[in-house]
Amino acid sequence: MIKHLEVRTSSRVQLLDITPQIKKLLISEDVIQGVVFIYVPHTTCGITINENADPGVRQDILETLDHLAPEDADYKHLEGNADAHIKASLIGSSITLFVENGTPVLGTWQGVYLAEFDGPRQRSILVKVVPT
Amino acid sequence: MIKHLEVRTSSRVQLLDITPQIKKLLISEDVIQGVVFIYVPHTTCGITINENADPGVRQDILETLDHLAPEDADYKHLEGNADAHIKASLIGSSITLFVENGTPVLGTWQGVYLAEFDGPRQRSILVKVVPT
Amino acid sequence: MIKHLEVRTSSRVQLLDITPQIKKLLISEDVIQGVVFIYVPHTTCGITINENADPGVRQDILETLDHLAPEDADYKHLEGNADAHIKASLIGSSITLFVENGTPVLGTWQGVYLAEFDGPRQRSILVKVVPT
Repeated sequence: MIKHLEVRTSSRVQLLDITPQIKKLLISEDVIQGVVFIYVPHTTCGITINENADPGVRQDILETLDHLAPEDADYKHLEGNADAHIKASLIGSSITLFVENGTPVLGTWQGVYLAEFDGPRQRSILVKVVPT
Repeated sequence: MIKHLEVRTSSRVQLLDITPQIKKLLISEDVIQGVVFIYVPHTTCGITINENADPGVRQDILETLDHLAPEDADYKHLEGNADAHIKASLIGSSITLFVENGTPVLGTWQGVYLAEFDGPRQRSILVKVVPT
Repeated sequence: MIKHLEVRTSSRVQLLDITPQIKKLLISEDVIQGVVFIYVPHTTCGITINENADPGVRQDILETLDHLAPEDADYKHLEGNADAHIKASLIGSSITLFVENGTPVLGTWQGVYLAEFDGPRQRSILVKVVPT
């Protein structure tokens, strides 16, 4: 079964920590050991793993992406969010995590982030847990 | 079993929509519910998910990548396609999708694209469907 | 079961070929056919697939990433490795490969690389093989 997480982002670009929701979902799914696939069905946001301590890291990631794909460059796509589409393909739409003892296997400094590039918005995150 | 899709790209850089082929393959595989892994066994193309409506989005993605890794920069690799290798690592070689009711679970605006960076060429795409 | 590979990188940025270790692990796991997930539990390195022949390709990838996220730019994160975090999110923390005849399915020119962005360091790589 695919589980749906609904989150709300609060600014145009944002790395929103969804680690607590993933952990909670795994508990409710009651899967002890396996693989969890996390997928965003959107084209202007992505999903990534990065540092959960200093919030400066998240700012640096977002600002560098703004530099690589500026919001106001001369794009063909005229909806004002071409940069968001580009960033989504650079970051990617899905991640795979392992599950052990009912919890996602993450490094000490790792958190799971929805990478919002065209917010603020309501976003869906699809999650599938496969026991192994 | 791994299934092979063969496609032909038509220009040096191109985002080629392979969503119809993925859907067709899922029908022939007769998997109702599961996970599908899509992988390119090449080092100068990648695979990504992005907008299936305005083709301008694809152009913007390709042009921004050209800007980040220009074809004619001063590279160590002298085969004229160093930029294609770099773009392949930025975009990634594989994606994971969910399957429900025998069809890939995609957002309204999502299409699956082979990201050609050193075409035109014949390209193989490897697909594995795992029922869950 | 999750298997752990331990490797040591030898410079600040490096694409370290881990293909031999992955092949060896698959042999010891005795899985003939399946999917293998490879994951780095770190936030300043990634994992990618690229050319296994000309080492110039690896240099070009690393130098372009240095150009996109320079080590000495004006970052919020003050530990001197903000660029490494950014590159990790651009490259990604995991890859998925297929297994056939007990060996990873790779294209002729493909190798699997740990992408070190803040070395030299000891790094862990988590691997899970799922028979299918």
